[in-house]
Amino acid sequence: MLFQVEMDVNIPIGFDAEEGARLKAAEKARFQDLQRAGTWRHIWRVVGQYANVSIFDVASNAELHDILMSLPLYPFMTMRVTALCRHPSSLHDDDR
Amino acid sequence: MLFQVEMDVNIPIGFDAEEGARLKAAEKARFQDLQRAGTWRHIWRVVGQYANVSIFDVASNAELHDILMSLPLYPFMTMRVTALCRHPSSLHDDDR
Amino acid sequence: MLFQVEMDVNIPIGFDAEEGARLKAAEKARFQDLQRAGTWRHIWRVVGQYANVSIFDVASNAELHDILMSLPLYPFMTMRVTALCRHPSSLHDDDR
Amino acid sequence: MLFQVEMDVNIPIGFDAEEGARLKAAEKARFQDLQRAGTWRHIWRVVGQYANVSIFDVASNAELHDILMSLPLYPFMTMRVTALCRHPSSLHDDDR
Amino acid sequence: MLFQVEMDVNIPIGFDAEEGARLKAAEKARFQDLQRAGTWRHIWRVVGQYANVSIFDVASNAELHDILMSLPLYPFMTMRVTALCRHPSSLHDDDR
Amino acid sequence: MLFQVEMDVNIPIGFDAEEGARLKAAEKARFQDLQRAGTWRHIWRVVGQYANVSIFDVASNAELHDILMSLPLYPFMTMRVTALCRHPSSLHDDDR
Amino acid sequence: MLFQVEMDVNIPIGFDAEEGARLKAAEKARFQDLQRAGTWRHIWRVVGQYANVSIFDVASNAELHDILMSLPLYPFMTMRVTALCRHPSSLHDDDR
Amino acid sequence: MLFQVEMDVNIPIGFDAEEGARLKAAEKARFQDLQRAGTWRHIWRVVGQYANVSIFDVASNAELHDILMSLPLYPFMTMRVTALCRHPSSLHDDDR
Amino acid sequence: MLFQVEMDVNIPIGFDAEEGARLKAAEKARFQDLQRAGTWRHIWRVVGQYANVSIFDVASNAELHDILMSLPLYPFMTMRVTALCRHPSSLHDDDR
Amino acid sequence: MLFQVEMDVNIPIGFDAEEGARLKAAEKARFQDLQRAGTWRHIWRVVGQYANVSIFDVASNAELHDILMSLPLYPFMTMRVTALCRHPSSLHDDDR
Repeated sequence: MLFQVEMDVNIPIGFDAEEGARLKAAEKARFQDLQRAGTWRHIWRVVGQYANVSIFDVASNAELHDILMSLPLYPFMTMRVTALCRHPSSLHDDDR
Repeated sequence: MLFQVEMDVNIPIGFDAEEGARLKAAEKARFQDLQRAGTWRHIWRVVGQYANVSIFDVASNAELHDILMSLPLYPFMTMRVTALCRHPSSLHDDDR
Repeated sequence: MLFQVEMDVNIPIGFDAEEGARLKAAEKARFQDLQRAGTWRHIWRVVGQYANVSIFDVASNAELHDILMSLPLYPFMTMRVTALCRHPSSLHDDDR
Repeated sequence: MLFQVEMDVNIPIGFDAEEGARLKAAEKARFQDLQRAGTWRHIWRVVGQYANVSIFDVASNAELHDILMSLPLYPFMTMRVTALCRHPSSLHDDDR
Repeated sequence: MLFQVEMDVNIPIGFDAEEGARLKAAEKARFQDLQRAGTWRHIWRVVGQYANVSIFDVASNAELHDILMSLPLYPFMTMRVTALCRHPSSLHDDDR
Repeated sequence: MLFQVEMDVNIPIGFDAEEGARLKAAEKARFQDLQRAGTWRHIWRVVGQYANVSIFDVASNAELHDILMSLPLYPFMTMRVTALCRHPSSLHDDDR
Repeated sequence: MLFQVEMDVNIPIGFDAEEGARLKAAEKARFQDLQRAGTWRHIWRVVGQYANVSIFDVASNAELHDILMSLPLYPFMTMRVTALCRHPSSLHDDDR
Repeated sequence: MLFQVEMDVNIPIGFDAEEGARLKAAEKARFQDLQRAGTWRHIWRVVGQYANVSIFDVASNAELHDILMSLPLYPFMTMRVTALCRHPSSLHDDDR
Repeated sequence: MLFQVEMDVNIPIGFDAEEGARLKAAEKARFQDLQRAGTWRHIWRVVGQYANVSIFDVASNAELHDILMSLPLYPFMTMRVTALCRHPSSLHDDDR
Repeated sequence: MLFQVEMDVNIPIGFDAEEGARLKAAEKARFQDLQRAGTWRHIWRVVGQYANVSIFDVASNAELHDILMSLPLYPFMTMRVTALCRHPSSLHDDDR
């Protein structure tokens, strides 16, 4: 089941640099685990923003919620979640 | 070069049904040509809306503009275009 | 899997009264089928508006999309869809 | 008498962790008392947000106001309150 | 129980003048019945707008909904409903 | 001359409690003076908000401005001011 | 007593040209009467818009309302009304 | 050449009182110089707000920019600038 | 003196095709005259929109207003006008 | 390939003055390098704002993203990026 998640990251000016680096590294590791698992299907940078557009493939709303809330950078993110489904015109049964 | 395009379709109530069906068939055919060509990389329906989230892969801004303006349903669409690029954390060189 | 759907209905002034009545009756019948099936779990009127707040219980995003798009009054509705999940503080395993 | 209340919680980064935990525990206890009493009829998490959608059943506007203002996390919440009523198409006399 | 209702009236240019006059007269009569009954406690014109700010005193959300939906000009109105209650600083037990 | 004034109060988390209590007491005293004088005609709490809807009766724009700017809690308030006048349908010459 | 009124004019495409010209001439005549009387103190065009920024000097909210509602182009206008007063730093007792 | 400039002033709670007073005095002096010079043609207080509506008469966009950026309270202001011109219906060649 | 003007064009569905073509040809001719004169310095299409971003170089606000209001497609356009000036960091005295 | 980038700069009140001056100097130097290279084609100040409107000429979305993210003042900026392309009516093959 697919969802578009748009994430804006906003780390306040003056935030501890070491802690910031640690959180970003943890976020990257967590992202790559989820990418390998096929859960975090796509991620793209939004040009000019510390933001991404992502596509998640999950079994339920609850699974998506648990993933998003446990992201290391979650406290610094604003999220917009949009439920998606297969488009009837698509030639691919499973649009990845 | 990747762009997210979000398209809302709004065909007015009372619009000629035959012409509407003809335009939708033409839109579908045009979409499938572009999907086969790899230009219209992804398309997803937005749940509960006559709307889609799409990812385009084009050589230039001008190519994207020409594609969008020539869609059969363009006169009935509202579009939001967002320039994207590869995310530095992604494990895939070419996130499709 | 739960979703909140907020629906605003806007039938244009001067719309054919008989057709309007027919659509509303069909909408009511469809709603009651879905209510009996447990899919359309809750519906409430918004005070002062021709609008409702509804809770749907579906197996997937696609099922919700198909239900919403096939509502007889869909062409006259504006919808906002919000993915929900169980609240960790709730005393009920399955908050209905 | 039913009301939809949408609550967004925003505890500032760097807020004292112990005090935060104390407030959340108090909030949970207060919520469960109200849930048992049938006043806080429903609560759902909004996917990807520290937010909920709730349905309250109260005797008056004033009762709702007193409940909301006395929530332990109230100072950290943004609320949107919408008055609801029974939907004429519902098969249930008292939509819970 | 008090509610603020803000009503904007928008009768389309070219609407039948006689029908418009008939609806306005019916609206005025209905308003005055409700004003006499103490249900429509206050009404004020918004300067420069075909709009009013009103205060209703009703027994329930459902009563307010029924009143608003049955106003002769309802199809031409946009409404914002705000639940109110007594202010703790007020010197009057029943702020009319 | 009547004005609707909508006031949202936002005292920052961590503001000195004693000073906050002093300001609220001063605000209440000032409000009650103006209520007794008939200048602050009505005040209602907005359900679920630290906010009020008020109706002022003043001799001029300048009088209203001076009153609002001198409220003890003014620095913590956001205000929306709307000029009102008697509604032509009202049965009361002086809608209080 | 001063008010800023911002007026946007929107005459629909295809509106009867003769009637449009008649309304504009009537609007101009009415404006000039009010300008001569000192009631419509200032008027400026907004660059690139069929819109103006105006300053009115009236004895009461009701007088302003009556003037605005009786403008020949009122049915085609959207208005924003802002109550003003003398600025304490101004060197002129009566800023015209 | 005329411009409408709307200025909202927001000095943070807790800002040094002496420095605040110094800045306001400097702002007032600068304003009065510009008022005497005929550059800052009009200024009005917005009722209930620490805000003003002003009309500037300048030789160029650049002159206006330099004036606004050098105001002592500029760092605390939010500004909206609107280019104006003479209204064709005005009886005055130079609407001051 | 420079201004950014953002123009959205919206010709209604069903508008007479011949008249539409005539207006677009007239708009193009008018644009090219102004481009040759150096008044309409720049024009760019916004990708995916029937819209442009333009830079005008004019002697006064009034000149810009007269140009914009006389564009053949003006009745179908929504415009946002932004006053610009030379940037202090620019290496070019006259940024064209 | 052209993009419009609108940048608002917001350096918090009380930010270290020396560090602010250092960042502004670095920003200016970086801007001038990019201006000389033809990448940052245009920059204009927005009148009354610490903001600019810029036109970039880049080979790809990724190049633009890298440039914007590496600007010394980036952490203090809010950006809006709009993809542009040549306008079909333009007399210039390469609108600079």
